[in-house]
Amino acid sequence: MTGFEKKVFEFIDRWGLIKQGEKILVAVSGGKDSMALLHFLVSKKERLGCEICVANMDHGLRDDSGREEAVMIASFCEKHDVPFYHERRDVTQYHKNNRGLSLEEAARIVRYDFLFNAREKLGADKIALAHHLNDLVETMLMRIARGTGLKGVISMKPMNNSIIRPLLSVGVQEILDYVTINMIPYKEDPTNVLEVYDRNFIRMRIVPLFKELNASFEDAIYRFYMNIMESYNIIEEKVRSFISSLETETENGKVQRCFGELDIFLKEQDALVAEVVREIVMRLSEDGYPPSRERIEAFMKLLGKQDRRWTIEFKEDIKSSRLGKYIFFYRGDLFESMKDDVDEVIEKLPVRVSTRFGEIILNYEKGKLELKEKFDGKKVCPCTLKVLKFPLRFRRVKCEDRMIPFGSKKEKEVFKIIKESGMTGFITRIPVLENADGTILWVPGIRAAEQCRVSDSEDGYALFRFERR
Amino acid sequence: MTGFEKKVFEFIDRWGLIKQGEKILVAVSGGKDSMALLHFLVSKKERLGCEICVANMDHGLRDDSGREEAVMIASFCEKHDVPFYHERRDVTQYHKNNRGLSLEEAARIVRYDFLFNAREKLGADKIALAHHLNDLVETMLMRIARGTGLKGVISMKPMNNSIIRPLLSVGVQEILDYVTINMIPYKEDPTNVLEVYDRNFIRMRIVPLFKELNASFEDAIYRFYMNIMESYNIIEEKVRSFISSLETETENGKVQRCFGELDIFLKEQDALVAEVVREIVMRLSEDGYPPSRERIEAFMKLLGKQDRRWTIEFKEDIKSSRLGKYIFFYRGDLFESMKDDVDEVIEKLPVRVSTRFGEIILNYEKGKLELKEKFDGKKVCPCTLKVLKFPLRFRRVKCEDRMIPFGSKKEKEVFKIIKESGMTGFITRIPVLENADGTILWVPGIRAAEQCRVSDSEDGYALFRFERR
Repeated sequence: MTGFEKKVFEFIDRWGLIKQGEKILVAVSGGKDSMALLHFLVSKKERLGCEICVANMDHGLRDDSGREEAVMIASFCEKHDVPFYHERRDVTQYHKNNRGLSLEEAARIVRYDFLFNAREKLGADKIALAHHLNDLVETMLMRIARGTGLKGVISMKPMNNSIIRPLLSVGVQEILDYVTINMIPYKEDPTNVLEVYDRNFIRMRIVPLFKELNASFEDAIYRFYMNIMESYNIIEEKVRSFISSLETETENGKVQRCFGELDIFLKEQDALVAEVVREIVMRLSEDGYPPSRERIEAFMKLLGKQDRRWTIEFKEDIKSSRLGKYIFFYRGDLFESMKDDVDEVIEKLPVRVSTRFGEIILNYEKGKLELKEKFDGKKVCPCTLKVLKFPLRFRRVKCEDRMIPFGSKKEKEVFKIIKESGMTGFITRIPVLENADGTILWVPGIRAAEQCRVSDSEDGYALFRFERR
Repeated sequence: MTGFEKKVFEFIDRWGLIKQGEKILVAVSGGKDSMALLHFLVSKKERLGCEICVANMDHGLRDDSGREEAVMIASFCEKHDVPFYHERRDVTQYHKNNRGLSLEEAARIVRYDFLFNAREKLGADKIALAHHLNDLVETMLMRIARGTGLKGVISMKPMNNSIIRPLLSVGVQEILDYVTINMIPYKEDPTNVLEVYDRNFIRMRIVPLFKELNASFEDAIYRFYMNIMESYNIIEEKVRSFISSLETETENGKVQRCFGELDIFLKEQDALVAEVVREIVMRLSEDGYPPSRERIEAFMKLLGKQDRRWTIEFKEDIKSSRLGKYIFFYRGDLFESMKDDVDEVIEKLPVRVSTRFGEIILNYEKGKLELKEKFDGKKVCPCTLKVLKFPLRFRRVKCEDRMIPFGSKKEKEVFKIIKESGMTGFITRIPVLENADGTILWVPGIRAAEQCRVSDSEDGYALFRFERR
């Protein structure tokens, strides 16, 4: 194996880019980078244990020239028996229709849309892009020049979901050598016309100066990149495990709200909490951008205060509030957003209430309470008529709610009872049945209160039923 | 307050650089940076609640010119009633005597030696250096150009032990404005002649190009710096807490050896373990440099293997070994380095053995065993003569040693017993008393073995005593 091949193999192995039996869609423009990637993957597919297919998009930027590349790639694919998918997309038109975007951004969006589309059509698992070490160096310097953080400086990843970049450890010179030695056909990359000014400026003017300081500048940047990747992985893991300890409500895979106890925030180190908050706000937000450093610091200050109730806005419509012992993160208005929740005043029985969790039926029963049904207080809860006072109220659980669980003598937070029941999801949406005197009588599906207990001597009682949706 | 003052105050506050009642030694060269720092600290000392004193070193690099600066600084100090300490040191001579060093390195060593010396003489708590944002930018770019990691890219810290850098958030232009507005005297910095080529190259040629890309380049780098600092703090804390869970032996504050159970390494994520190993090797090594990435990766591979015994060298003389369930890090030879430990063959009683932990006395007692003394098996251990077989042996505990603790029926690892006793320090150095048949009879100060039990019918027994040093 040549040095180039060894390096690429090691990189694929190091980051687990390709797994046995996977089908890899190679994005090929026809330039030397993507042709080298294609040649490498095709010639090593047995060893890698993968299938290869190719997608080429004509940007439609230079009249008819896109056709030349397509013909060249198609002939390469035919020779090596590789499925080839081609499409012409009008980037210029898309750019005209979306004036807020730069031409490069427009091309990027059209290109990714094309690639994900092609991946589906060809039934591929992953998409391989031909970004190499010089691209990485330029991207990192560009990010640093604009101000970034750990996550931003390594935005060009070896693997990002289904996108893989097998050439990230080899430089453009090594690629050129590989292409020359293997007599691989290529055209001057037609997408070069899309190069933005900044990237060109870094490549042509800044990188050469760094190379005067250090002839192995690209290797130095690569070491920096690898070190930062490792560091970032440590933090990412800690952040992930913290966030997974919060209660989160998602809709269509998008985070809507989440909350957790103040204590778990206070126990963790500040820097990690800041990172967690940054990540939560990014997940909550439409654009995926993090809040400003100043907002994070303002949040951290509030967190340390004694005030039991505050709200802070991070950006647009994304806020955090403390309500007693809990910290919430949400979009829009925390209570407004919950108004679809049940809040029903009950003047008499029988009654049937529909909630997002299920149907709740309250009724009177005659005679003595017999233990024919499994009256565990969860799905079926008998309640003595001695305590029942109208109007009852069905409402969302509050932070400050407390009750005496059936069989116990000690009052306990309802939130805690719900949590201990193993209930997952957004527990602040769970309804409770409140007596006219303010006692919580029942948490449907979760627990009855001690006050409900029906004595042996009683003739007749109320029965609450919960039918999960 | 001006923008400059506000920025510096905020920075001092953000990083807790100066605490009430501290005495701050300002390192003043006479250039505008250090004169601005001195002026700021002197004029705000009441508000900061600190005392100020000044140290100036004449590098002896330019004949007599160092005297001019000294006179200027002395007059400033006199006017503001600030203690002033001056010394001339011959950097050129030191450089001649240490040919391995560059002139800049030599100057740096002499300068720090002078400053720590001055700090002691003046009874100061901290040393304030005048590094500013442009220095930070240059240092970071220089590090990146040479290849670095998270720790290296933020090597210029707001606070590093007793060194503080209050001006790190302000640029050279802001300093110039501050000096001009406040009519602060200064000389062109005499240490500028020490500027190395690389730093000058970055300042004069690379930074201006970045500023063409982004006019607020320094602010962008500062944001990057702050983000990286925060990320690094998260990791540093995790690494610190991992290392504190290992058994560590230090001599004169220098780590000599440490070890921990394999399991705690396997349970943690790879990237964090790699960082932990890097940190341990740095602490073990004389020069404080980390091992190469390749060595770390080799270690990680060994860690994942089934082999119960291996050794890997990180650098010079620093190694790691697995011995059964334990991972050791050490300098030189693990066993060689422990040869000062006790290893004594005992042919008959009475006998007295001295160990680094204390005196051990073994003797015969007549009559029946009576419970007058607190025979807890730790400091005093009676042993039946039925099991005692000579030669006994006093030796260092081994990983594979097992014993049945007194009062128990189940054999247990001696390491575990020692750990559970709450013993801290380097537990592999603890001695055990081994019977001729290989049984561990006693771990002095920790636990007796069940086999020692003296029955009521026995007349006469052996008594082992341990007197802690």
